[in-house]
Amino acid sequence: MSTKSIFAPQKSANILPVNGVQLSVISCNLKSDSKPDLMLVNMSEGTAVAGLFTQSATTAAPVDWCKKILNQSDARALIVHAGNANACTGKNGTELVKETTKFVATLLDCHKNQVYMAGTGIIGQIIPAYQIINKIDELFNNLTDDAFELASNCIMTTDTYSKGISKIAKFGEQNVIISGIAKGSGMIAPDMATMLCFIFTDAKINSEIIQKLLNRANVKTFANINVDSDTSTNDTILLFATGKIDLEQPITSENDLQLEDFEKKLTEVMLYLALQIVKDGEGISKFITVNCSGAKDENDARAIALSIAESPLVKTAMAGNSPNWGRIIMAIGKAKRDINKKKLKVQFGPYVMAINGGPVPTVDMDAVKKYLTCKEIYIFVDVGIGQRSSTVWTCDLTHAYIDINADYKS
Amino acid sequence: MSTKSIFAPQKSANILPVNGVQLSVISCNLKSDSKPDLMLVNMSEGTAVAGLFTQSATTAAPVDWCKKILNQSDARALIVHAGNANACTGKNGTELVKETTKFVATLLDCHKNQVYMAGTGIIGQIIPAYQIINKIDELFNNLTDDAFELASNCIMTTDTYSKGISKIAKFGEQNVIISGIAKGSGMIAPDMATMLCFIFTDAKINSEIIQKLLNRANVKTFANINVDSDTSTNDTILLFATGKIDLEQPITSENDLQLEDFEKKLTEVMLYLALQIVKDGEGISKFITVNCSGAKDENDARAIALSIAESPLVKTAMAGNSPNWGRIIMAIGKAKRDINKKKLKVQFGPYVMAINGGPVPTVDMDAVKKYLTCKEIYIFVDVGIGQRSSTVWTCDLTHAYIDINADYKS
Repeated sequence: MSTKSIFAPQKSANILPVNGVQLSVISCNLKSDSKPDLMLVNMSEGTAVAGLFTQSATTAAPVDWCKKILNQSDARALIVHAGNANACTGKNGTELVKETTKFVATLLDCHKNQVYMAGTGIIGQIIPAYQIINKIDELFNNLTDDAFELASNCIMTTDTYSKGISKIAKFGEQNVIISGIAKGSGMIAPDMATMLCFIFTDAKINSEIIQKLLNRANVKTFANINVDSDTSTNDTILLFATGKIDLEQPITSENDLQLEDFEKKLTEVMLYLALQIVKDGEGISKFITVNCSGAKDENDARAIALSIAESPLVKTAMAGNSPNWGRIIMAIGKAKRDINKKKLKVQFGPYVMAINGGPVPTVDMDAVKKYLTCKEIYIFVDVGIGQRSSTVWTCDLTHAYIDINADYKS
Repeated sequence: MSTKSIFAPQKSANILPVNGVQLSVISCNLKSDSKPDLMLVNMSEGTAVAGLFTQSATTAAPVDWCKKILNQSDARALIVHAGNANACTGKNGTELVKETTKFVATLLDCHKNQVYMAGTGIIGQIIPAYQIINKIDELFNNLTDDAFELASNCIMTTDTYSKGISKIAKFGEQNVIISGIAKGSGMIAPDMATMLCFIFTDAKINSEIIQKLLNRANVKTFANINVDSDTSTNDTILLFATGKIDLEQPITSENDLQLEDFEKKLTEVMLYLALQIVKDGEGISKFITVNCSGAKDENDARAIALSIAESPLVKTAMAGNSPNWGRIIMAIGKAKRDINKKKLKVQFGPYVMAINGGPVPTVDMDAVKKYLTCKEIYIFVDVGIGQRSSTVWTCDLTHAYIDINADYKS
C-alpha cells in the first residue's frame, strides 16, 4: 500500500452509531492481505432508502441490482465487498448477486429486494459465490452498532486512509444522527459519484423525500470532484433512514422547513466525504480548489471548472509549482462554453495572472512561485459573460499516480 | 530538450519541393536556444487554400485571423512563429497579427487577407511586434524552394524530432506533389487537429474542393489521435494548392474520379503526420492502436475508442505492462454509448481477455505480459451491438510526461 496521503486527518473521526443500524466486517480473501473486505449492514424494518449510481455503460452487477430494487420497498440490509468490483463478470457476476442477496434475506427473514449490494476493486475477475456466502453467518452473528470505523476500513482499496464522519441535525428540539462512510482514491470523475458512499440516519423521512435531498446534496459535493477523469463501473451512494427517531411533525415534502438543518448537515457530511476522496487522490501532493465565476449559468461554470480540474497539463503544472497559467486558458477553451475572451481573468490564490483576456505584466512571479509551493492551491477564473459560478475540487498529477497505476494488479 | 522519442524515424524524410512554393526560416528569439522559430512561405498567385482550426473557445489571435480570411480569396503567404502561441494576449496579440500580415502583404505586393498566420508555444506572453517584423525582410530575401526540412524543424516546440513527408499523386499521366510538415507533442486531443500542419501541392484544384478533401481526410487522421486529452488554443491545418500543375481535365467536384489517387495520397500524408505526432507524444514509451468494432455507428465507435485512448488508467497500465483489461471495460463504460454488456470483447493483440461480457479464464497471462512489453500495442474491443468500427492512436502515460510538463516554462 502507498504511504498515507499528507492530507489524511490527524486522527480518525468518531463515527456515531445510528439507531436501527448494525454492522459487521470480516475477511473473505478478496484483498491480498487478509484484511476485512466484506461488510454486512442490517437495518431495522421500515428503513427508507435513496441511491445514486454511476452513469457508466458498463455498470457492475451489484450496481445493476441496486438500480433494480431501488423504489421497490424499504431496505433491510447492505452487503459490500472490497478488492473485487464484480464488474464485467458475465453470468457469474449476476448469479453471485442473486445468491448472496437471497442468502442474506433468508437469514434476516426479509425479501431479497430489501438487500442492497455494492462492490469495489478489480474489474473482470469472477468471485466464486461460496467465498462470500460462507462468511455471511459469521457476519450476521457479529453485528454490532459500533462498527462504523471497522466498516470504513473494510471498504478501502487503494485508499491510504479511511473516511467517515457524523453530524447531528436538529428537528426542533429533537436530534437525529447522520453518519457516513466512503471510499475512493482513483478512477474518480464527477459523473454522479465515482466511489462508494454509505450514509445512515435515524430520522424518519420517506424514500421519495430522502432521494430528492440526496440529489440536491450530490450536485454540490460528489458531482464536483475529480481525481483522474476516469469513471468507475461501481459508483454507488446509498442513503438509509431507519426512522427510529420519529419526528414531532411528519415530513411531507422535500421543501419542509423542518428539514433545513438536516439538509445542511447531510450536505456537510457528503462534502466532507467527497473532499476526503480528493485528498486521498492517487499520488496527490496538492489539493486544488477551482472556482469559475462570470459564467452564463451554473452548468457552464461547472463544465469550465471541471475542464481545468481534469486537464493533465494543469495538474502536472501544479505538481511542478509552475505558474504556467496559459494552460488554464487552454482548459477554459476546451470546455467550449460561452465565454468573453476579452474579459477572461485568471488568478492563482491572490495573484491575478491574466485580466481582460491578456497577461498582467506587473505580477510578482517570485511571490506566485512561492504561493504555488503551498499544499492547498486556489485557482479562480472569471469568464466575463454572466453572473453564475461553481466550485470543484481536484488534486495534482504526480509521479506517484503513475507508480500506483502502472503497478496496480499483477 | 527531451531525449528523442524511440519512435523517431531512422532518418529524416526527403520532403520534395512543390512548384510555386518558396520558404525561409530565421530566429527571432522566441525560442530560448536561438534556433529558427519564424517561418515565411510564399506561394504563387492563384493558390487555393483550405483550413481546419481548433474548436477551443479560447482560440489564439492567429487562428482568429485565419478563420476570418479563409474563403475570401486565394492565398499568397503563410507566416508561422514557434515558441509563443500568441494566445490570451489581448489587444496586443490582435495588433501583432494585423501589423505582421500587413508588412508581409506590402513586401509581396498582395492583400493582407492573402497572408495566413499560425503560432505555437507558450500561452499568455505578449510578443512585441518589432521582434517579428524586423526579421521579415531577411526572411523574404532568403526564400527558396528547398527549405522544407528547415521549416519542419523551425515549427517544433516540445517535439523531439521534426515531421515531414512527400507523396506523388497521379492524375492520369500527370504527377503532382503533396508535401506536408507538422508539429505537435503535447496538448494533443482530437478536436479537429490539435497541432500545426501545413500541406502544399502543385495540383490545380480550387479552394472549395480542397476544403472538402481536407475535411474527409481529417476524420480518418488528425481527428483520431490523442496524447493527453488537452486541446490547444492554436490548432491549425492549412492545405495550399498552387495550381502550377494544370490538370488535363479541370476538377469540378470533390467526387471527380480523377481525384482518387490524390485523395488517397493526401490522406496518407495526413495519416503519416498525425501518427508522427503521437509517436512523439510527450513522454511516450509505447505506441498504442485502439480499434473499436461492433458499434451502432462510426461516431459511437470513435467515441468509445477515444475514451480508451484518453483514459489515464489505461495509459498508465500500458506504461507498466499491466494486463489490467478491467480498465478498458471502465473506459468503454464512461463513453456512455450504446453497447451490449453481455457481448463485450476485449483483446490485447492476439490475446482475448474478455468475451461475452466476462473474463476468459484460460488466457496465458505470461504470454500476455510478454506481449505488453512490446513497443507497439494493439487494443481491440467489440461492443456487440452493430457493424461499425473506428481506429484511433495514442501513447502511454509515463513519468517522462510529468517530468516534461512539471518543468515546461519557468
